[in-house]
Amino acid sequence: MALLTSEMADVAGSINKALEAILPPVDGYESQVVDAMRYALLSGGKRLRPFLVLASASLFDVPTPRATRVACALECIHTYSLIHDDLPCMDDDDVRRGLPTTHKKYDEATAILAGDALLTLAFEIIADEKTHHEPLVRTELISSLARESGSHGMVGGQMIDMLANSIELDIGAVARLQQMKTGALIRFAVEAGAIMGRATKDQKHALHNYAHDLGLAFQITDDLLDINGDPAQLGKAVGKDGDKETFVSLLGEDRARMQANMLADQAVIHLEHFDEKAELLRLLPHFVINRRN
Amino acid sequence: MALLTSEMADVAGSINKALEAILPPVDGYESQVVDAMRYALLSGGKRLRPFLVLASASLFDVPTPRATRVACALECIHTYSLIHDDLPCMDDDDVRRGLPTTHKKYDEATAILAGDALLTLAFEIIADEKTHHEPLVRTELISSLARESGSHGMVGGQMIDMLANSIELDIGAVARLQQMKTGALIRFAVEAGAIMGRATKDQKHALHNYAHDLGLAFQITDDLLDINGDPAQLGKAVGKDGDKETFVSLLGEDRARMQANMLADQAVIHLEHFDEKAELLRLLPHFVINRRN
Repeated sequence: MALLTSEMADVAGSINKALEAILPPVDGYESQVVDAMRYALLSGGKRLRPFLVLASASLFDVPTPRATRVACALECIHTYSLIHDDLPCMDDDDVRRGLPTTHKKYDEATAILAGDALLTLAFEIIADEKTHHEPLVRTELISSLARESGSHGMVGGQMIDMLANSIELDIGAVARLQQMKTGALIRFAVEAGAIMGRATKDQKHALHNYAHDLGLAFQITDDLLDINGDPAQLGKAVGKDGDKETFVSLLGEDRARMQANMLADQAVIHLEHFDEKAELLRLLPHFVINRRN
Repeated sequence: MALLTSEMADVAGSINKALEAILPPVDGYESQVVDAMRYALLSGGKRLRPFLVLASASLFDVPTPRATRVACALECIHTYSLIHDDLPCMDDDDVRRGLPTTHKKYDEATAILAGDALLTLAFEIIADEKTHHEPLVRTELISSLARESGSHGMVGGQMIDMLANSIELDIGAVARLQQMKTGALIRFAVEAGAIMGRATKDQKHALHNYAHDLGLAFQITDDLLDINGDPAQLGKAVGKDGDKETFVSLLGEDRARMQANMLADQAVIHLEHFDEKAELLRLLPHFVINRRN
C-alpha cells in the first residue's frame, strides 16, 4: 500500500498545481465567484477521482498532461457537486475537509454561482484542444461526463437522496441511488482513460465493471464511516444519514463490511486481463474500504 | 414586423417540440428533477436566443435540425440561469412567465438540481454527433458556450449583479456587467451560426458587433420595462432593480431610450455586408427595443 499512498500523494500534488494554473485569480468585481471556486477546488481532498483518471489512462500510455486535464475537469464537477450538496436546502453542512463550506465562507448566492461556474469550466477544459488532439475524443469525453453527471447520473442520484427521508428505499433502490450519486463520477473517471486510450470493447467492459464494484465498495465504506468515523479525521460531520436507509441500515454493519470486502475482491478480478500497468488500480479497492476518511 | 413575429412564433413552436423530444419524462424517483427541468424549460418564453441561433445559422445555409439542437442547448443554459437567479438567496422571485418559479412550484433543492442538470444537458446535446457531423465544430461550440456562460461571462455577470446593491457601479461597469450577464448568451447565439456555418473572420466580426449592440439595447429595454412595464404583460414582477444602478438610473429614461434606439440602428448597420438572408436579423433590434415583455 506504500506504493499506492505515495502515488496518490503525487497525483494530488500535480492536480492541485494544474487546477491552480487553470483557474488563476482574476480582477474585477466577479473575482468573488472565482475566489469561491478556488476556495472549494483547492481546499485539499483525496483527489480519488483524478487518481482514477490518471491510473486508467496509464493503462493505455496516454500522455500524463492530457489525462491531467481530464482529471481536473472531473474534479471541477465533483467540487461543484459538493458545494451544492452542502447548501442549507440540501444537506446543510457547515464543514467540509475541515474548513467552512463555501456558503459559510462566502454566502449562498456565491456558493451556487461558484458551483455553476465550476460545472461549466469542466466542459471548457475538455473541449480545449490541449486535452486531446482529436476532437472526436474530446466530444466522447464530454458526452460521457455529461451523461454521468446529469439527471440520469449524479444529479438524479442527489435528487433521490433528497427524497430518501420521505420514501422507503429497499436495498436495490439504495444501490441504484448510489450508482447514480457516487458511482457515476467513478465510472467516468475509469472510462476517461479508456476513451483517451482507444481501449477495446472488452477492456472498456472490464473497466466499467471494475468501476461499478469500486463505486459500491466506496459508498458502503462511506456509510460505515458515517456511523463509526472520527469527524476530526473525516473533516466533516458524521451521523448525517439520520433516518435515511443506507447500506448499513439495511444490511447491518457486519454484512455491509463483508459486502464491501467482497466487492473490492471482485473489482480486482475484473482487471485480470490487464498487465502490471494495472497495479495501482488493483491496490485501490482495498485501500478504499480500509480508509479512515 | 409581421414577418418577424410570425417567424418568431414558428421558431418558438419548433423549439418547444424539439425540447420536449430531447427531455422526455422519466420513471424512477429521479423523475422529480426531470419534471422540474421540463416545467422550467417548457413554460413558454419568447425563445429569443434560439431564434438568434436559427437566424444566424440561416445566413450560412446551416441545416435547420442542426441549428435547432444548438438552440435547444442554449435555451437549457438560459433556463438554468433563470431558475438559479430566481432563488431566494439571489433575486428571490416568485413568478416567472406568469407561473410560479421552479423553487415555488417544487422546492429549493429541486430547483438547484434542475438548474444543474439543464446546464449539464446543454453540453450533452451539443457533444452528440446529431448536432454536427464534424467533431471539431462541436468542440468549438462547446468552448464558446462554456466561455460565454461561465465565470468570465454570464455567471460572472450575475455575481457582479448580486454585489450591485453594495458597490457603486458607473455606466462603464454597468455596461460590462450586462455584457457578461445578458450579452454573453446573445453573443453565443449569433456566434453559433457562424461556427456551424464556417463564417469568414470578417463575417464573425460583423456578427459579434451586431450581438454586442443588440445585447445592450435588449438590456436597456429590460431596465425601462422594470420601471414602466406591466407585470401582467411581462409575466414577472417589476421594480425589482430597487436601488441598483441600471442604465436607466444612470442615464435617465429619455437618454436610455435614445441610447437603445441608437444601438438598434447600429446593430443593423453591422449587417450591411450580408444579403437578404439577414432580413430577420435586421428586423430584430427594433423589435427588441419596442417589446412590451
